Amino acid sequence: MTFDFSDKVKGLKPSAIREIFKSLTDPEVISFAAGNPSPLSFPVEKLRLLADEIFETEPSKALQYGITEGYSPLREQVAQRLKSKFSTGKDFDEVIITSGGQQGIDLACKVLCNEGDTVICENPSFIGALNAFRSYGVNLKGIDAGEDGIDPEKLEKMLCEDSRVKLIYLIPTFQNPSGITTTLEKRKAILEIAKKHGVVILEDNPYGELRFAGTDVPTIKSMDGEGIVLYCGSFSKILSSGMRVGFLCGHNDLISKIVVVKQTNDVHTNQFFQMLCSKFIDRYGLDEHIKSINALYGKNCALMLSSLDDNFPRCISYTRPEGGLFLWVTMPENTDMREFIKRTVDAKIAVVPGETFMPDVNRKSFSFRLNYSMPTENEIIKGISILSDVIKNMGIN
Amino acid sequence: MTFDFSDKVKGLKPSAIREIFKSLTDPEVISFAAGNPSPLSFPVEKLRLLADEIFETEPSKALQYGITEGYSPLREQVAQRLKSKFSTGKDFDEVIITSGGQQGIDLACKVLCNEGDTVICENPSFIGALNAFRSYGVNLKGIDAGEDGIDPEKLEKMLCEDSRVKLIYLIPTFQNPSGITTTLEKRKAILEIAKKHGVVILEDNPYGELRFAGTDVPTIKSMDGEGIVLYCGSFSKILSSGMRVGFLCGHNDLISKIVVVKQTNDVHTNQFFQMLCSKFIDRYGLDEHIKSINALYGKNCALMLSSLDDNFPRCISYTRPEGGLFLWVTMPENTDMREFIKRTVDAKIAVVPGETFMPDVNRKSFSFRLNYSMPTENEIIKGISILSDVIKNMGIN
Repeated sequence: MTFDFSDKVKGLKPSAIREIFKSLTDPEVISFAAGNPSPLSFPVEKLRLLADEIFETEPSKALQYGITEGYSPLREQVAQRLKSKFSTGKDFDEVIITSGGQQGIDLACKVLCNEGDTVICENPSFIGALNAFRSYGVNLKGIDAGEDGIDPEKLEKMLCEDSRVKLIYLIPTFQNPSGITTTLEKRKAILEIAKKHGVVILEDNPYGELRFAGTDVPTIKSMDGEGIVLYCGSFSKILSSGMRVGFLCGHNDLISKIVVVKQTNDVHTNQFFQMLCSKFIDRYGLDEHIKSINALYGKNCALMLSSLDDNFPRCISYTRPEGGLFLWVTMPENTDMREFIKRTVDAKIAVVPGETFMPDVNRKSFSFRLNYSMPTENEIIKGISILSDVIKNMGIN
Repeated sequence: MTFDFSDKVKGLKPSAIREIFKSLTDPEVISFAAGNPSPLSFPVEKLRLLADEIFETEPSKALQYGITEGYSPLREQVAQRLKSKFSTGKDFDEVIITSGGQQGIDLACKVLCNEGDTVICENPSFIGALNAFRSYGVNLKGIDAGEDGIDPEKLEKMLCEDSRVKLIYLIPTFQNPSGITTTLEKRKAILEIAKKHGVVILEDNPYGELRFAGTDVPTIKSMDGEGIVLYCGSFSKILSSGMRVGFLCGHNDLISKIVVVKQTNDVHTNQFFQMLCSKFIDRYGLDEHIKSINALYGKNCALMLSSLDDNFPRCISYTRPEGGLFLWVTMPENTDMREFIKRTVDAKIAVVPGETFMPDVNRKSFSFRLNYSMPTENEIIKGISILSDVIKNMGIN
């Protein structure tokens, strides 16, 4: 039996990262390839207690079908927190709970884009989003993320030249994979350009709460007076990734349509864990817990940066993130990246090659992504030391 | 801000049932409108115990990202059970865990259908599936389900006339909404026709285990020697609907592509509840538990049927299901259904009008669906009595 797949999914490849993740069964491998939160960040005992309470007091509600919009108390808590802590969300905005941030991205594209439409992304960008867009047969156009966000002039030019742009996808804070944060000035400029052209911005912010240095930059959504920004958030990096609970906050006309489409997608998000999130927020709040995660990640990131500073040759550059999970290392322009990745695998170090994150699959990359949330301190020290040996053995210095 | 939605979702309406479900806050309403399992069917204390064990022994695995294919032990248990109990699944078949049966349906359509392709369905059929298909811009063509499944000759004719048919969607056992079961002869004939035309059958079987009378009819998938049948199952009606855990079993080439697309959709299904399902099966098995559900639904169904027999005029017909959650009532052909539904609402009885389930939105229906899993015995007796008064007051006798 051979299958005739739809045009939109025919060329779709599995995410290289998820494939790397599957192959990481060798306990000797030091992995800097993950996008996972540290297991130390899961508030296990608190969740355990609250889960038992749900089974005790509201089992039928937790195990029965819920409404597509999401568990009402959680929707209100999310809306409240966005508003009070990040000035994000106006009266015309609504929140829908999604099955992780990933589903929010998928639904946004499905609802707004026809096949052949264009989505503008940062270059590099989150592979999960890029593949979601590809699965709807849209064209991806990348704008270099640079050191502090895309160039608004390039965005303006692209919008003028392409009338089929339906979505601008950005991760303005602690970007995946680069770790960079878009400046306030650029955020303002990008928003004005999107408004001028009437194109929706999908602001993906799964890492925004994970700041361990510097000061918050306002979300683009917080400056959105008319509902042109759809904001995507997630509990994956602050409570549990395996539970698949995220959310979208956007104009009620847009959210209403997304609700209808989510209904056809998975009816609603796991009801028990929506209630568990809600109970956790109610009982403990999120701030203290997030503070402890950031202490851990800040320490790991600093250790990784000092190891890089101590070991890597000067011709190699890397970002110095103030939060999130990743930093982005760029090799000299003539590096044989295929050979480099091969050698890292042989040395039992896992990194994610930069080309994985390119909206344009033919675009070369001399970068790779390093994760510092998952490895232990020893793994960071040992792993970076091995990586620098690999680099030196390639004659890069 | 006005939004320019994609062509495929522009005309999509929320499921009437989910909307009815939301409006059922009046405690005086007797609802026969649900598609929910009885809350009495949730094995609360057992799940509570096992959930606590997971928090005790494997919290990091349960709260962390998992692989898209699903939790391996659960995939194996599902494959095993399908094979040993229903002779379903060959060596070339694989199982993927989905976020409820709904996601299985959605993914099947996304992977196989371009916009403008055709999906053949039973008429009437499950609204959640119809809307999922619509959300990909496909054309729906219905074949009357009759009393024992669609007419294979009509299927053959439709396939000869329409070269764009990519999927045949069937619920052969205890169909939603009609409660009917397709005969073995028709199953065989349908499979042969599908093979001849090389069109995939999506066999949706969320109710197959809920048999309280008669004997099992082999699944279409069990007779599938080449992988042309994609089988969709669910734990929603046997363990918990709110947890959103279902599965697909199909040819590994097809499942591989579905894995890639699910990855872009929600990464994976809630990991904790996949482990909980697996532990439940491991510790208690499913058979005893399902037996107790069927005792309950069999009793409710028999009571509803005897109430209908005692109260409804002879000109009204209804199906006599041997399992599942629903029966299907058909009024005389000239009935003013709009007026009837209005009067049921006024009498505080909720039923789902037949037109909801029509693949062709312009097709008239003189039927409605009754659910017997959710109401209590008293509600069944009282509700059917009120319904028959409504009918008599309309001059139908």
